[in-house]
Amino acid sequence: MSASLPPFPKAGEPSSEPLLLEIASSADEPCLRADAARNRARLLEAAARLVAEHGAAGVTMEAVAAAASVGKGTVFRRFGDRTGLLMALLDHSARQLQAAFLGGPPPLGPGAPPVERLHAFGRAVLRQSSEQLELQLAAQPEPARRFSSPPLRALSGHVTLLLRQAVPDADCVLLAQTLIGYLDPALIHHLTKECGMPLERLEAGWSDLVARVTRTEPPR
Amino acid sequence: MSASLPPFPKAGEPSSEPLLLEIASSADEPCLRADAARNRARLLEAAARLVAEHGAAGVTMEAVAAAASVGKGTVFRRFGDRTGLLMALLDHSARQLQAAFLGGPPPLGPGAPPVERLHAFGRAVLRQSSEQLELQLAAQPEPARRFSSPPLRALSGHVTLLLRQAVPDADCVLLAQTLIGYLDPALIHHLTKECGMPLERLEAGWSDLVARVTRTEPPR
Repeated sequence: MSASLPPFPKAGEPSSEPLLLEIASSADEPCLRADAARNRARLLEAAARLVAEHGAAGVTMEAVAAAASVGKGTVFRRFGDRTGLLMALLDHSARQLQAAFLGGPPPLGPGAPPVERLHAFGRAVLRQSSEQLELQLAAQPEPARRFSSPPLRALSGHVTLLLRQAVPDADCVLLAQTLIGYLDPALIHHLTKECGMPLERLEAGWSDLVARVTRTEPPR
Repeated sequence: MSASLPPFPKAGEPSSEPLLLEIASSADEPCLRADAARNRARLLEAAARLVAEHGAAGVTMEAVAAAASVGKGTVFRRFGDRTGLLMALLDHSARQLQAAFLGGPPPLGPGAPPVERLHAFGRAVLRQSSEQLELQLAAQPEPARRFSSPPLRALSGHVTLLLRQAVPDADCVLLAQTLIGYLDPALIHHLTKECGMPLERLEAGWSDLVARVTRTEPPR
């Protein structure tokens, strides 16, 4: 994943500054030409569609090239190999999600009340994770480093900020970890694939959880 | 760990039967003589003390033999090697915890109101995990199997039952997964070792979380 995310404020230190994520550019490619960047994004969008439709197994360099109407060599030059492509895809999706909750339209982005934004956040993460479940599982770090990985810290940092607005007297760092735990790809996998729950039930469970944690009424 | 735990009821199927765990005997040693069983328990208690005092690195076959005042050969005959000893220790601790919440004194065991039992449950798990953190982390299954491991299912099954008594109208299977997620050894490791939080803060966070999830007042 990307190493360009800033260090997360030490838990316990109240932070009033929003957690700014560098989402507009890829740190290792600061000078990517505009048409090359567009080309890269187009390849990643094609790969994302293939994952959503056929699972990770459906993503080959050939399939992505065909779906994006470019030569196979272009895909190899851009991503090196299939693992490079899949990691770039996860990074791309994480950045898209971050852009949406940091600067996209409400209720996911700024402009809606914090509790509404929390409701929208969970639905967005659940939807994205359910499309990329195998990929996200395969990319999970070992247990001792799982919670310190930059993508997860970006999510829990955002949830902490929203909770500080919604329930300022609570231990928002800990509550945020709880909410993020509900969105763990391993849990989503267990519930939807092993227990056969529909995603709608997980979405309803998220709404109920946010309402309980913030001591508000669940949305209708 | 042990393979003697019964299959967990499929999530979504309301179950009114308590989840009975086979805690009195070890499945692979049904005919262990009483003195051999006592001897085994004494070795494991010694190993547990060593882990709590010195961490997993402090547990060698020699140290356990010395701490239990037996010959080194006895420890090797009983557990095979150090890994066998450590796995047996985790299994032993899990069974002790299960015995305590299924049949021990209240508020952890039966006899107290369900919300009080939930409060006590989290404190007991946090305390045990904090003593065996490295061991529990090392024993965590790969992400896709983490939530279906028998020890974790025993914990989430118990929390589900207590929630069904406390908040019968809620989706208790999902709320239980949330509460169990707060007790994830990887999260406890992150918060206490990487972020430097005292265990007391995690205990207070658990009380607050249980109160919010059950829409009750936190205990004083």
